[in-house]
Amino acid sequence: MSPKPSSSGVNRRALLSALAVLPVFGSFLPMSARAQTAASGGALPSWNNGATKQGILNFVAAVTQEGSPNYVPPAERIATFDNDGTLWVEHPMYTQLAFALDRVKALAPLHPEWKNTQPFKAALEGDMKTLAEAGEHGMAELVMATHAGMATEEFQKIVIDWFATARHPRFKRPYTELSYQPMIELLAYLRANGFKTFIVSGGGIEFMRPWTERVYGVPPEQVVGSSIKTQFQMRDGRPELFRLPELNFIDDKAGKPVGINEFIGRRPIAAFGNSDGDIEMLQWTTMSGGVRLGLIVHHTDAEREYAYDRDTPFGRLDKGLDAAAMNKWVVADMKNDWNRIFVFE
Amino acid sequence: MSPKPSSSGVNRRALLSALAVLPVFGSFLPMSARAQTAASGGALPSWNNGATKQGILNFVAAVTQEGSPNYVPPAERIATFDNDGTLWVEHPMYTQLAFALDRVKALAPLHPEWKNTQPFKAALEGDMKTLAEAGEHGMAELVMATHAGMATEEFQKIVIDWFATARHPRFKRPYTELSYQPMIELLAYLRANGFKTFIVSGGGIEFMRPWTERVYGVPPEQVVGSSIKTQFQMRDGRPELFRLPELNFIDDKAGKPVGINEFIGRRPIAAFGNSDGDIEMLQWTTMSGGVRLGLIVHHTDAEREYAYDRDTPFGRLDKGLDAAAMNKWVVADMKNDWNRIFVFE
Repeated sequence: MSPKPSSSGVNRRALLSALAVLPVFGSFLPMSARAQTAASGGALPSWNNGATKQGILNFVAAVTQEGSPNYVPPAERIATFDNDGTLWVEHPMYTQLAFALDRVKALAPLHPEWKNTQPFKAALEGDMKTLAEAGEHGMAELVMATHAGMATEEFQKIVIDWFATARHPRFKRPYTELSYQPMIELLAYLRANGFKTFIVSGGGIEFMRPWTERVYGVPPEQVVGSSIKTQFQMRDGRPELFRLPELNFIDDKAGKPVGINEFIGRRPIAAFGNSDGDIEMLQWTTMSGGVRLGLIVHHTDAEREYAYDRDTPFGRLDKGLDAAAMNKWVVADMKNDWNRIFVFE
Repeated sequence: MSPKPSSSGVNRRALLSALAVLPVFGSFLPMSARAQTAASGGALPSWNNGATKQGILNFVAAVTQEGSPNYVPPAERIATFDNDGTLWVEHPMYTQLAFALDRVKALAPLHPEWKNTQPFKAALEGDMKTLAEAGEHGMAELVMATHAGMATEEFQKIVIDWFATARHPRFKRPYTELSYQPMIELLAYLRANGFKTFIVSGGGIEFMRPWTERVYGVPPEQVVGSSIKTQFQMRDGRPELFRLPELNFIDDKAGKPVGINEFIGRRPIAAFGNSDGDIEMLQWTTMSGGVRLGLIVHHTDAEREYAYDRDTPFGRLDKGLDAAAMNKWVVADMKNDWNRIFVFE
């Protein structure tokens, strides 16, 4: 049921027409010096040679080739990455949900009513089935109860403190070590080729910003995510932003292009995701003329990570698999395309 | 009634304590190589020598001096600039209002009812008094009628086309030429010293992004502004973002720190404004410990530009003058501190 990785997610017609105007020597593809270095084995060492890796290299070569009709100036080389399941592990549950559940437990003594109120009861009892059934509304309730009611700087400290001690239940490591080595290499490779890399995640923007620079090399101002409202106020003569229990923006599905437009103000030329929540971002990126790259990470490795797609509560890839085939997005098959999964390996 | 430019907007105590740990030779202030070049006459040529210019140079010297307790790493050197009245002219009316009035005239044939409906009637008749009385609600109505109802890319084209032909009523030049040369130099000087410069304006984010890179060297992804909602949709098999007649975010007054936190995710160490709408941004920036710079552009030159502060419909500086004195923000007196006003001079 996994579609074979397409030979290339780039717009093949545009690429071929570009090649048509250049002298062709066998399968020679014009490349910038940097992309050539990469293709010769320097970049993306955790990616196995094959159609997937070549699709990435071809795309970068095409848009960085000065004088080519597919050339994109550095200022317009915007690449957007989903986070959960694309840059790091999202199973057995989103990291931010693990954080919220721990916060519910920590705050429970102040809220005796939670013992008998859903979704808090399920959170306290670790009843994942009921939690999953509570759906988006239940998640929102958990987030409001655990992510609001303090200043932004206090919340940042809570997040940092949590990451310092929390461990993934299977890998027994800090969550920030569970990022994918091939994707870290891809981020660096794109930046080395003049791209500006952004995270565009359904996760909370203030949950990610404290560590994205250290883990991904992506600074806070290049992180787009979901948010709750904040309010400016003076407290004891000091200005602060107070976090309100009110949704501001959901950066998922059709919200991703909206967030990209609002925060970045340029249309990406490359986008990377792993679930149905990323379809609209990849459509917005790739269906715009010119050579573009859409890539879907397909979780196919139960042994080294997890295997899931059409039937999972977190990171479902159902319509996205069909959309990938239809739009010629590159599908990265974790098991076959990645010779190394984690940064810590 | 104009307060004398304060000798420095930096936290004087922090600066003095920094100097205390260094050998002092007369009035020698430790400076980075770049700041030294600047102080020696290279940078900020349109700023007259004096307390205002020195306040800027001292601040940059303090935060770029490696090893100093006031040192700020480049990644954290965030500077935010208001636009209207701070980087370019805002009289006799905000440029975006001139745009909206022209759009009302262009769209009037499709809306015969506007002849008898406020604020459209006033807009069509150029009745500025009635328009001013219509207040924020009236402005919002004008914006919804003229800025929504099309795809983002169509709106971008409308903006670009308008700027190509619109002329300022007094200076008879394209609005984008009415930016302030001293502020352009300041933007460049800060960037040369490792700062990342952002625009944080009450103006529409999509009204600014088409030209900020060319005019200010500030790319679209470093522009924060007010916005209306957009909706992702597929039209004729192509994805687009459709602009809805619904307010999304007002990036003014207490909204400015909120916007800064949401879009940038870091607290600025320098902020530049000219009106009461900038007070909260400067509070958020300067009242946070460490050496910080807040600067207010005071319009004092009726001959070369305009003179206004406490009593004007656009860019009112009333409480802001008092806040500047109280918080030791630098006040740039256009008439006395700038030897050149416009880029075109």
